[in-house]
Amino acid sequence: MKPTHIEHIGIAVKNLDEAVKYYQDVMGLTCYNIEEVADQKVRTAFFKVGETKVELLESTAPDGPVAKFIDKKGEGVHHIAFAVKGIEQSLEHAEKHGVKLIDQKPRKGAEGLDIAFLHPKSTFGVLTELCEDKGE
Amino acid sequence: MKPTHIEHIGIAVKNLDEAVKYYQDVMGLTCYNIEEVADQKVRTAFFKVGETKVELLESTAPDGPVAKFIDKKGEGVHHIAFAVKGIEQSLEHAEKHGVKLIDQKPRKGAEGLDIAFLHPKSTFGVLTELCEDKGE
Repeated sequence: MKPTHIEHIGIAVKNLDEAVKYYQDVMGLTCYNIEEVADQKVRTAFFKVGETKVELLESTAPDGPVAKFIDKKGEGVHHIAFAVKGIEQSLEHAEKHGVKLIDQKPRKGAEGLDIAFLHPKSTFGVLTELCEDKGE
Repeated sequence: MKPTHIEHIGIAVKNLDEAVKYYQDVMGLTCYNIEEVADQKVRTAFFKVGETKVELLESTAPDGPVAKFIDKKGEGVHHIAFAVKGIEQSLEHAEKHGVKLIDQKPRKGAEGLDIAFLHPKSTFGVLTELCEDKGE
């Protein structure tokens, strides 16, 4: 596996509008997109900082994964996404090294990227996303 | 404030050597430096991925900040560092907007950078570091 950069940092927040205001007014970033991802039960807001995005995540349901995360750990960094070349091979490589995969195969994520998650129990506590922009 | 990029992602781990092995063998990153920061009671390992560093943090004392973090939240992302221009003005700006500062003024951090932390209670749960490379 050879990650090229940090594609994004996913941050779980209770109130998206307040968090967007903070990242704009205090941190000086510009929110360029807000979208709802129904199957993940989240509303997301995107900012760009260098080659990395900050992705704020607000749960749209009390039983959604982001709501559960906040119940357990509080607001904060939810996952880190590494951009890779060859996501299928990267998953195979991780599995061969004993990493538990959440996604056995890549699926479509936000912004049309191919994405897959590695389980935080195998990755020293960091919910790790691999993603690849195949430009399709 | 105008961050230019994500300078690094700090990750709290229980066993630095095992985590270094994971980031090298599985994630394909190269560890270019391991150093102990005595006043923070941590041993750190650095990797580069694009313009961002992954900084692994292992506590060297049971009462160190990283040990306390792991006791409370488990292993995982400990802080996010944004590279900024004008760190003093950035701190002033944050404080004016009601953000609680951990460091009132910048201090010297790893790799000679000027650094300062914002309190996670003011930043939606993300322990936020500002840092500036003044090249001194």
